[in-house]
Amino acid sequence: MTMANAMFLLLAAMPFLSLLLLSPSLALNQDFCIADLPRGDTPAGYPCKPQAGVTADDFYYRGLNTTGPTINPFNIGIASAFVTKFPGVNGLGISAARVDFAPGGVVPLHSHPGGTELLFVVEGTLASGFISSATNQVYTKTLYKGDLMVFPQGLLHYQYNLGNDTAAVALSSYSSANPGLMILDFALFANNLPTDVVSKVTVLDELEVRKLKALFGGSG
Amino acid sequence: MTMANAMFLLLAAMPFLSLLLLSPSLALNQDFCIADLPRGDTPAGYPCKPQAGVTADDFYYRGLNTTGPTINPFNIGIASAFVTKFPGVNGLGISAARVDFAPGGVVPLHSHPGGTELLFVVEGTLASGFISSATNQVYTKTLYKGDLMVFPQGLLHYQYNLGNDTAAVALSSYSSANPGLMILDFALFANNLPTDVVSKVTVLDELEVRKLKALFGGSG
Amino acid sequence: MTMANAMFLLLAAMPFLSLLLLSPSLALNQDFCIADLPRGDTPAGYPCKPQAGVTADDFYYRGLNTTGPTINPFNIGIASAFVTKFPGVNGLGISAARVDFAPGGVVPLHSHPGGTELLFVVEGTLASGFISSATNQVYTKTLYKGDLMVFPQGLLHYQYNLGNDTAAVALSSYSSANPGLMILDFALFANNLPTDVVSKVTVLDELEVRKLKALFGGSG
Amino acid sequence: MTMANAMFLLLAAMPFLSLLLLSPSLALNQDFCIADLPRGDTPAGYPCKPQAGVTADDFYYRGLNTTGPTINPFNIGIASAFVTKFPGVNGLGISAARVDFAPGGVVPLHSHPGGTELLFVVEGTLASGFISSATNQVYTKTLYKGDLMVFPQGLLHYQYNLGNDTAAVALSSYSSANPGLMILDFALFANNLPTDVVSKVTVLDELEVRKLKALFGGSG
Amino acid sequence: MTMANAMFLLLAAMPFLSLLLLSPSLALNQDFCIADLPRGDTPAGYPCKPQAGVTADDFYYRGLNTTGPTINPFNIGIASAFVTKFPGVNGLGISAARVDFAPGGVVPLHSHPGGTELLFVVEGTLASGFISSATNQVYTKTLYKGDLMVFPQGLLHYQYNLGNDTAAVALSSYSSANPGLMILDFALFANNLPTDVVSKVTVLDELEVRKLKALFGGSG
Amino acid sequence: MTMANAMFLLLAAMPFLSLLLLSPSLALNQDFCIADLPRGDTPAGYPCKPQAGVTADDFYYRGLNTTGPTINPFNIGIASAFVTKFPGVNGLGISAARVDFAPGGVVPLHSHPGGTELLFVVEGTLASGFISSATNQVYTKTLYKGDLMVFPQGLLHYQYNLGNDTAAVALSSYSSANPGLMILDFALFANNLPTDVVSKVTVLDELEVRKLKALFGGSG
Repeated sequence: MTMANAMFLLLAAMPFLSLLLLSPSLALNQDFCIADLPRGDTPAGYPCKPQAGVTADDFYYRGLNTTGPTINPFNIGIASAFVTKFPGVNGLGISAARVDFAPGGVVPLHSHPGGTELLFVVEGTLASGFISSATNQVYTKTLYKGDLMVFPQGLLHYQYNLGNDTAAVALSSYSSANPGLMILDFALFANNLPTDVVSKVTVLDELEVRKLKALFGGSG
Repeated sequence: MTMANAMFLLLAAMPFLSLLLLSPSLALNQDFCIADLPRGDTPAGYPCKPQAGVTADDFYYRGLNTTGPTINPFNIGIASAFVTKFPGVNGLGISAARVDFAPGGVVPLHSHPGGTELLFVVEGTLASGFISSATNQVYTKTLYKGDLMVFPQGLLHYQYNLGNDTAAVALSSYSSANPGLMILDFALFANNLPTDVVSKVTVLDELEVRKLKALFGGSG
Repeated sequence: MTMANAMFLLLAAMPFLSLLLLSPSLALNQDFCIADLPRGDTPAGYPCKPQAGVTADDFYYRGLNTTGPTINPFNIGIASAFVTKFPGVNGLGISAARVDFAPGGVVPLHSHPGGTELLFVVEGTLASGFISSATNQVYTKTLYKGDLMVFPQGLLHYQYNLGNDTAAVALSSYSSANPGLMILDFALFANNLPTDVVSKVTVLDELEVRKLKALFGGSG
Repeated sequence: MTMANAMFLLLAAMPFLSLLLLSPSLALNQDFCIADLPRGDTPAGYPCKPQAGVTADDFYYRGLNTTGPTINPFNIGIASAFVTKFPGVNGLGISAARVDFAPGGVVPLHSHPGGTELLFVVEGTLASGFISSATNQVYTKTLYKGDLMVFPQGLLHYQYNLGNDTAAVALSSYSSANPGLMILDFALFANNLPTDVVSKVTVLDELEVRKLKALFGGSG
Repeated sequence: MTMANAMFLLLAAMPFLSLLLLSPSLALNQDFCIADLPRGDTPAGYPCKPQAGVTADDFYYRGLNTTGPTINPFNIGIASAFVTKFPGVNGLGISAARVDFAPGGVVPLHSHPGGTELLFVVEGTLASGFISSATNQVYTKTLYKGDLMVFPQGLLHYQYNLGNDTAAVALSSYSSANPGLMILDFALFANNLPTDVVSKVTVLDELEVRKLKALFGGSG
Repeated sequence: MTMANAMFLLLAAMPFLSLLLLSPSLALNQDFCIADLPRGDTPAGYPCKPQAGVTADDFYYRGLNTTGPTINPFNIGIASAFVTKFPGVNGLGISAARVDFAPGGVVPLHSHPGGTELLFVVEGTLASGFISSATNQVYTKTLYKGDLMVFPQGLLHYQYNLGNDTAAVALSSYSSANPGLMILDFALFANNLPTDVVSKVTVLDELEVRKLKALFGGSG
């Protein structure tokens, strides 16, 4: 036993001497930043909830343990754990979502403007692909249980269930607490951009645009 | 006159004493990084051309002083000054492009996966808009000569010429040396993603998909 | 026509069924952050204006469509679209400025502490240069209409009009919403740093310093 | 039908006219950067594999679909998809790992120097906690199937299986392609830092240090 | 003398003409961001104190010119200049601390979750080392007055005084305004994480854990 | 003693069982990146030296333990530990320099294009100041032994020795491995930018420019 350790054992016998208050003297800042959502966002995320009120529940999220709201007409459910739902990921550059695919379920073509997606197949078999913006080349794979596929930031991608009678479940994580989600059909057909403008900037036939605006709730 | 200045005047009379070689002793690194394109990219940009060979021409680009290659069938010309064309912007978080709109010219719906676009109207009048991914809301403006409009990273946007008989010119800058360019029609219809898959993940009619694949050179 | 598309056509006939409210269930965050200037800055930019109040005008800026305020005695006008004037660029890593050069106009030696400048010549002919901090080497170019030149972050640079009787116009963009602008003459001679201190830290003659302090409004 | 669409239909009938070669003229850079591992790392990640050789397999990883190598004596298996194993995540700020817990399995106290961990419980029930560095406060939760918990970058944390007879599986994602993994026992006891130094800098008894060095393969 | 200079001398004789108000017309943002601590943190640092109230004192800190509070039982004093003590470093990616080592003084094993440490020996001789998380390899050096050693972000490291009868002083700087400080003994033994859990996740003997909890003020 | 600990003691008696090879199976990447200088820079720093050849010496630098090369005519010596001299800071966002001030010594007006400076007074008394680019306001302080002053990125600043007969020493750290150093006199007067151009872009008298070009070794 060294001298130092002997000293420590001695000290250990004097518990009243051992009140060590490191933090007050060093005035350390908290090492996380739970989003205080009502105060509104900044470019780097939400202001931090004061440290005194932080509890273990702030780092915990139960919202992915069941299927999320159904997205029609795609036969999928999406439950997300982005910062607005899970304030604990604020400022940490990560978030997640769970996708449940009914038979025939499709995550339609979409992109994440603010982050890369890393998809893990929890259950089932999926067809998946993304499109390079530089070459328009398509990269497709069949994904089985336990497989990973990465979809680089901002690129259009899709998944659909290959099981005829079976469901599939995926857990996706993102390289941002707020990756965003641009679903192409919603962007094109679920707003009031006039049909002739949609047609002009996409070369889609106006009849087709009107039909899909009706389906997705757009006007104009 | 202070003592110090007197000393400096004295020194000024002795030019042979004034050989000051700051850089060798401090071994400073270059304060720019011209892309050495043949060596290939890294996630942060290209390796730097050795400083000894850098000249003023490396910071200079003439490629935007005329109309760029025509993009069919959109009646526009695009000349870009991204890092692969203008190696001087490597690592500096900025680049540019020039768009020339013939009458009826349209920059079709597109996004930049890697950067925000700031558009300045050099000549003419444009209709422009972008679509929020969070709400699918469309933000549109008529842009006149000298106006600016900003298109946040990764969001779908378009411009078209409002002049019946007049051309328009825009100079866009980007918050990245390599912002990327995803033109929706090219992503959907200029590759070999099978028609039934395109239809499944976009809800577009297969007939429409086939028609546009023919137009944009896609197969499958 | 596939089964899926048939289903969609059916759905399209039932518009009341097609109310798709993606955003509420996914609770997505806005994908931009218009500066709410009165609330004050943070290191990453201004807090975001609430999404409900955002309109297309927030992404639009008219301030560069005419000459900006004259900067004496340099015969130039500068109009800027930094975040404090154009809140739409907040958090997006980009901004712009327009410089109008009268005959004889000079943008004096200056730097941008927070960003790289990419200059585009809209009209006229300019002499331009910047100084490497690592080697003190000067890189100079004559710039014609349509040319680009890049000035890396923090390095001293200048431009002046080469047209004897003609004006010139430049549109500069920056790799930051808040690049800053340090004009050397203003930094040296437009404040109250005592003349002897200015002389000591620049080796400029005190007489010269006093003359320029008078010109630029400095005291001390 | 608009004029524009009519024109497009016409064009569609002339497939030989529709050869659109966007990329060559715009010289776009690839929008991902598959790690070319043999060329060695840089501070921002590995150099990119040339685009011509990239295939869908580069974005795909099968290594998490079975249990990874066993970590003794902890009764766990860890399979990682960090950049050195899954080159597709290079430069994208995300990666993943799968942890299989046998009954009694423990992921011992560890931290990730380079990233935040977001853990999803695929199967089973876990006890989990992390320690704030600012206050030394411990945040603990019991995690059930489908739950998420976030462990902020650099903080010590642990998980262990609460099932007496059942296995558990977790899928963790990280906010870095290369988050690192510092397992405390390995850092303290699996190297040649002399026992008296370990004791001095940890206040652990030398006997204890020697015992654990024997267990974890350390010397000195 | 050039024409331009003549003009300037003329102008210099007319001081009332020389009121140059650059900033109001350009509406420049401040080029620093002094932390306004009471308003609370964000992921990128504290909101900025309004520019009007900023003085030279905001960029200045006297707290490192004497020994900081003693950290028991380690015979050291630590004075920190992190953002919560020195608001002037807010948003600037740098901070500092001073460590005074009495004879026998030890900075116990610790890490900085949010930044790299660069240590400079002001006085005395230190033993120092850090542990790689990738290989568990230890890198150790004896440091003399004037030496530098760098400890990469998030890795465990230590220093201790090699002088038998002499003090030592180190000045450390960090690559963050808020690097954090995780002292291993405090993390393990100064909180209420139950002894059996500490033992389970560290493999330390419970007796040892209890002894050190008594020393460092932990419970449970 | 818990069951788990008993098991570990047992294991401890079987050293041949304890060969734990964490890293090979997990294929972890190194957690630092020593600059391999001969391979040249990238925008994010130098490629990494292979891990196998890294030793403790790579994290260690002796170059600041004596006065650096004299910078004429300023009566100072500067020794730097930027990445080109101290490869261990590569990619870590920090570096340092030591400045020795003889009596009358002056660090002339300069800026660091790539980083913030945090200055610590090791010995002596300094006058110091910097100039805001937004307002041209000067912030000055007298600095005593042990004081800190921060100089935000890209802003012009200076220090000079206030001791009539005594030396002073400062240790500055920077928020970048490669902060750069732009000494105003060198930028203006130590290169071949023609005298009339220097005069035009600074409003300095040509005679003054010629005098200082002679002093600092410039031509033209």
